[in-house]
Amino acid sequence: MKSVWWEDGAVCLLDQRRLPHHVETLRCETLAALCEAIRTLTVRGAPAIGIAAAYGMALASRQGVEAETAATLIRQTRPTAVNLFWAVDRVLKSGDPLGEAHAIAAEDDEACRAIGRWGAELIASGDTVLTHCNAGGLATSGYGTALGVLQACHEQGKRIHVMVDETRPLLQGARLTTFELAQAGIPHTLITDNMAASLMQKKRIDLVIVGADRIAANGDVANKIGTYGVAVLARWHQLPFYVAAPFSTFDLQLPSGSGIHIEERSPDEVRSFAGVPTAPAGTAVVNPAFDVTPADLVTAIITERGVLRPDYRESLAAVSVTR
Amino acid sequence: MKSVWWEDGAVCLLDQRRLPHHVETLRCETLAALCEAIRTLTVRGAPAIGIAAAYGMALASRQGVEAETAATLIRQTRPTAVNLFWAVDRVLKSGDPLGEAHAIAAEDDEACRAIGRWGAELIASGDTVLTHCNAGGLATSGYGTALGVLQACHEQGKRIHVMVDETRPLLQGARLTTFELAQAGIPHTLITDNMAASLMQKKRIDLVIVGADRIAANGDVANKIGTYGVAVLARWHQLPFYVAAPFSTFDLQLPSGSGIHIEERSPDEVRSFAGVPTAPAGTAVVNPAFDVTPADLVTAIITERGVLRPDYRESLAAVSVTR
Repeated sequence: MKSVWWEDGAVCLLDQRRLPHHVETLRCETLAALCEAIRTLTVRGAPAIGIAAAYGMALASRQGVEAETAATLIRQTRPTAVNLFWAVDRVLKSGDPLGEAHAIAAEDDEACRAIGRWGAELIASGDTVLTHCNAGGLATSGYGTALGVLQACHEQGKRIHVMVDETRPLLQGARLTTFELAQAGIPHTLITDNMAASLMQKKRIDLVIVGADRIAANGDVANKIGTYGVAVLARWHQLPFYVAAPFSTFDLQLPSGSGIHIEERSPDEVRSFAGVPTAPAGTAVVNPAFDVTPADLVTAIITERGVLRPDYRESLAAVSVTR
Repeated sequence: MKSVWWEDGAVCLLDQRRLPHHVETLRCETLAALCEAIRTLTVRGAPAIGIAAAYGMALASRQGVEAETAATLIRQTRPTAVNLFWAVDRVLKSGDPLGEAHAIAAEDDEACRAIGRWGAELIASGDTVLTHCNAGGLATSGYGTALGVLQACHEQGKRIHVMVDETRPLLQGARLTTFELAQAGIPHTLITDNMAASLMQKKRIDLVIVGADRIAANGDVANKIGTYGVAVLARWHQLPFYVAAPFSTFDLQLPSGSGIHIEERSPDEVRSFAGVPTAPAGTAVVNPAFDVTPADLVTAIITERGVLRPDYRESLAAVSVTR
């Protein structure tokens, strides 16, 4: 499922705030409109944000906005997913913004399919897989990272079942992952985030696979809030915890996850849902959008260049002489 | 805050489905109305369910419903909280249904205040306490178990801060615990359930305290879904995990938690949020209302007879020659 594409001089986005009950396209004809769309999560998922950012640079170039100005505006939209910064830098360095954006999208698609193939080797027919948030086609160029692996299993005829964490506060699991799995015909069951532990205790989960928003050079992984808890629970129950992500998600300048800027979002996301308030007005809230899972809880990182195992500095060095 | 009381020949319930935005009383004049109210969570929380069940027996007696018939109907409303079965049995054995119901309510109030005093000894000024679901006055005769401990700390002038898990799917934390803490003037912060791990990782939580729906003879604790995960996370981060519950919550006939019947509730509770559908219609769901935390993850159980430590068979034997 395509989440971002270029059409007649504009960046088109499948409006992920409205899914699954409304399938609508938002057409961004200005850089300002696109920045607002990234900020408000019309498009989300680290690779998809990167692609949207690249197309945003192309849009700015068409509008006659100076490239460095456009880059600054795009970089201010969301702080955690490194793909955004990486994509902006790539387009800045290229002489052909639109061509480069198309290349970034095409390479992401190839990367996700390769991740799918590598990852499928880790999953057996009959396995039940827990996933958190949405790392599907909607979060990428169309195939998905964590869900790409499950898609590849499905294409290979493996019988798998997916347990989907609903993923509060914005319910990307309930709204987006269920939607994509239903479209793909992959059997799945929706749970609230706090049910995963009990299912692991009852041996109803065989492994965990999630995406990533930024991975540091030591293998520490920033991903949707709640991921760290799932990783601890997986270790406690002796289950593999896999992260699926393209190389565009690695931030090799960053020695460890402690340097990752975690976005804090509006308290109303926690105090309400879909406009319906839950808590008393004015209740104090914290709302970090991401958390950091230390590398020692990550069984393996599935990339387009293969499956990396700890020690991640060493396994990364073996596959990434250049980015 | 009173959740259940007898008034002019009827059982009155503060309608907990409507809190915090609507403070309304539901007056049950028939046993059928009361059973429906228990089933639909107008009243919830193990001790409060027990009190409601006792008053239900008194109501049945006024209506001329045969006692054993009334007991059967009440026992069918909700399976997990043992207080309900215990209260029905107590009233069945007594010659004065209303008097016995009043006694059960009064004893629960005394028990909660004693739990508060014992538990407060475990908490220091400056501590930040995580709680899950609602174990406050609303869940009991008025003082609370886990929240009763925090109330006692507050009354003693200890400065505490409470992190409140919102507690999906029915949001008892977001709707009820925040409401009670605000009324008591105890500082608190609302979080989604999947944020607790990250806060523990950042050393922003000092201890966990929760209530219970049923405790087996070995100290295994059934409580709101998500409790087991919190207990694992607490152990992982080397934080104390306390359970606060009156003796009416112990099921000493049950050797371990594996024998506890866990209620499975409607899938729509998971597929929607505050009445707004979230997932695609027809998405498969599991919805266990409770989970079981093994005794070895429970640092201590705070009862009205004192703080019990492992081995719970021994510590229980020391305080409970009779129930």
